[in-house]
Amino acid sequence: MVNSGKGLENVYIDQSSICYIDGFGGKLYYRGYSIEELAEMSSFEEVTFLLWYGELPTKKELEEFSKELARSRKLPEELLDLLYRIPKTAHPMGALRTAVSFLGNLNGEPSATPEDVFRKGISVTAKIPVIVATLYRIKNGLDPIEPSTKLSHAANFLYMLHGEKPPKEWEKAMDVALILYAEHEINASTLTVMTVGSTLSDYYSAIVAGIGALKGPLHGGAVEGAIRQFMEIGSPEKVEEWFFNALKEKRRIMGAGHRVYKTYDPRAKVFKKYARLLGDKTLYEIAERLERLVLEHLGKKGVSINVDYWSGIVFHAMGIPIELYTTIFAMGRIAGWTAHLAEYISHNRLIRPRLQYVGEIGKKYVPVEMR
Amino acid sequence: MVNSGKGLENVYIDQSSICYIDGFGGKLYYRGYSIEELAEMSSFEEVTFLLWYGELPTKKELEEFSKELARSRKLPEELLDLLYRIPKTAHPMGALRTAVSFLGNLNGEPSATPEDVFRKGISVTAKIPVIVATLYRIKNGLDPIEPSTKLSHAANFLYMLHGEKPPKEWEKAMDVALILYAEHEINASTLTVMTVGSTLSDYYSAIVAGIGALKGPLHGGAVEGAIRQFMEIGSPEKVEEWFFNALKEKRRIMGAGHRVYKTYDPRAKVFKKYARLLGDKTLYEIAERLERLVLEHLGKKGVSINVDYWSGIVFHAMGIPIELYTTIFAMGRIAGWTAHLAEYISHNRLIRPRLQYVGEIGKKYVPVEMR
Ligand SMILES: CC(C)(COP(=O)(O)OP(=O)(O)OC[C@H]1O[C@@H](n2cnc3c(N)ncnc32)[C@H](O)[C@@H]1OP(=O)(O)O)[C@@H](O)C(=O)NCCC(=O)NCCS
Ligand SMILES: CC(C)(COP(=O)(O)OP(=O)(O)OC[C@H]1O[C@@H](n2cnc3c(N)ncnc32)[C@H](O)[C@@H]1OP(=O)(O)O)[C@@H](O)C(=O)NCCC(=O)NCCS
Repeated sequence: MVNSGKGLENVYIDQSSICYIDGFGGKLYYRGYSIEELAEMSSFEEVTFLLWYGELPTKKELEEFSKELARSRKLPEELLDLLYRIPKTAHPMGALRTAVSFLGNLNGEPSATPEDVFRKGISVTAKIPVIVATLYRIKNGLDPIEPSTKLSHAANFLYMLHGEKPPKEWEKAMDVALILYAEHEINASTLTVMTVGSTLSDYYSAIVAGIGALKGPLHGGAVEGAIRQFMEIGSPEKVEEWFFNALKEKRRIMGAGHRVYKTYDPRAKVFKKYARLLGDKTLYEIAERLERLVLEHLGKKGVSINVDYWSGIVFHAMGIPIELYTTIFAMGRIAGWTAHLAEYISHNRLIRPRLQYVGEIGKKYVPVEMR
Repeated sequence: MVNSGKGLENVYIDQSSICYIDGFGGKLYYRGYSIEELAEMSSFEEVTFLLWYGELPTKKELEEFSKELARSRKLPEELLDLLYRIPKTAHPMGALRTAVSFLGNLNGEPSATPEDVFRKGISVTAKIPVIVATLYRIKNGLDPIEPSTKLSHAANFLYMLHGEKPPKEWEKAMDVALILYAEHEINASTLTVMTVGSTLSDYYSAIVAGIGALKGPLHGGAVEGAIRQFMEIGSPEKVEEWFFNALKEKRRIMGAGHRVYKTYDPRAKVFKKYARLLGDKTLYEIAERLERLVLEHLGKKGVSINVDYWSGIVFHAMGIPIELYTTIFAMGRIAGWTAHLAEYISHNRLIRPRLQYVGEIGKKYVPVEMR
């Protein structure tokens, strides 16, 4: 028996050829390609293909894959009906969890196989943005918009949300966001997806579980926490007071700290560029001042800026309400979840660790009447 | 960095005072009490209290806890409405996953705290059997039955399923089943629940994820697989041929093998007793012959009989359709999920292991037009 570090820190649970993170160097590669090159030159569709099948697609493969994704956008009537019934007070991540679970009920849920994972992966990847945009419009008393089959994955989401085709620079920023969120090795939600998959449960059960994990504020939920904290601070000159107060009260800075990165997250650098380009000036300045304080005062602990720090400012610039930001993370991350699920079950073994028991043994049961 | 055994075998991921398994001795204790004593003398309500709060309840505590559980049975109208809309072809575990997720949408889903986990735990523990029985009756064109507040947890489930109060020996057998299924350290579904919880996501997200993991045929789903294999064999004289065929085709015997037990699962011994008492004679004989072959031919590998082997024969004797058996496992296991979730987040750290990268690094991106 081996004792792992708390939270499974520094334990390799398997080998993988999907993603490499250099946590001290601040580098990230999907299938060997650097995240900076992919974010600048690729598209979410292409990156998804790369993550799933291991190689960049040819032109023809990419066209077919993109078409298949676009064709799979339309929601079944029964699901549309359900979306109207989910309480409007539900958090969009909770609503998305229910919607994807229901999609499984509609489609049958046999034990996952790698081929089946990719087939269902296309369908669910295509539908998540459609579900999110539809829920948003219903909640706000607007008529849902039919998905377009002509637009890119990123553009279609913005189109369905706002009811008009997005400007080119929004489409690009959303596409980049989805690429940056697409994959990150075995983070908490990916471990969740793989553990469910390791029981040979079905694809939907695994993805629904991943959505539930991503929702947490220490994971994907931090993207909402980060921008809310900038808003709470309210103006650049209040940053310093707020920061030292947070330290004193031992509150965590959202969008800062990471189990693997001990330096500036390379994805955050890309998001920062788009935040400067598109974002609200005041929010940007608040975030930048706070960032300086984090690096100065927490940097020695290895706490730096992570992927969720700047992204919210980018989404905010596109008129997207804060409570949807974690669902955008999910729209991207489903690519990585699906890749790891297929990889893991292709050489499957049940994921089943141990807990070290530290209580008593052999207590004598006394019936309740005699207690 | 440490390499764990495949599937996290033999890795202690944390300490715990909930459950002790002696996998070589074939012993199991909940909070220090042996499973045999609990199964014989206790009740599911009492065991749930024990698992959650660490001590057996006093008479007054048990009464209050049981009353609170009974009071929480009633389903909200919106959920009842949803149950009618879940496709009848859905597997009950998939339907349960959707129903519990929707319950979260109705009830608000803030980050979990230990107190909040127990509060919601009572509500969801109370409602799972009600959801399952209601789905079953709707699917079979029968009117759903209102939960009783007078019956025990076990009896109420059978009452709502069949429309009449169960005989005493059925109630006892169901109560024992729920006790045996209540807890088993950090199995795949409990790891899933804890990983979701470690992101500080909400209670429902964690439980929904656990349901998805339990559904898998290598985990809770095996209870359905086990009885289906006895039925497939059909008669005692066909057991031998079937077994050697399965071995040849490298198929796994369902209800056999376990990551931790390398000997007869103590829970299976208790189930076997009830199977002999109540079960169909032919099924029992088939199972017994198959058991002998498993022990004789696979025992040297450490493959023995597990909790899911005999339980189906007990449920079958009570007229419960096979596709509900894994949901009965869930009805019990929610007690353990809830206990571990509360324990883990009371000293939380994000569960985030690593994968060892075995691919290339630094591939040059070539735009699709130039590929
Ligand atoms: C992501 C996170 C959970 C990783 O945490 P971890 O590897 O488990 O790190 P630990 O909780 O062990 O923290 C290590 C130290 O850094 C500190 N720290 C970590 N993140 C911090 C943050 N965001 N703000 C302030 N301090 C932080 C901890 O307080 C701890 O300090 P201590 O040793 O003095 O007690 C953590 O950094 C965090 O909570 N971040 C905020 C939420 C967030 O942005 N999540 C998105 C991640 S992509
Ligand atoms: C539960 C289970 C997943 C645990 O598996 P594990 O610890 O990962 O065990 P492994 O898959 O490494 O198997 C170890 C060896 O035992 C064999 N084995 C394990 N379970 C077996 C079974 N049910 N039938 C036949 N052989 C089995 C494996 O084939 C393997 O043999 P090998 O070393 O010759 O290849 C496994 O026993 C199983 O699949 N059982 C059937 C499903 C079941 O009943 N699940 C409910 C558990 S409560």
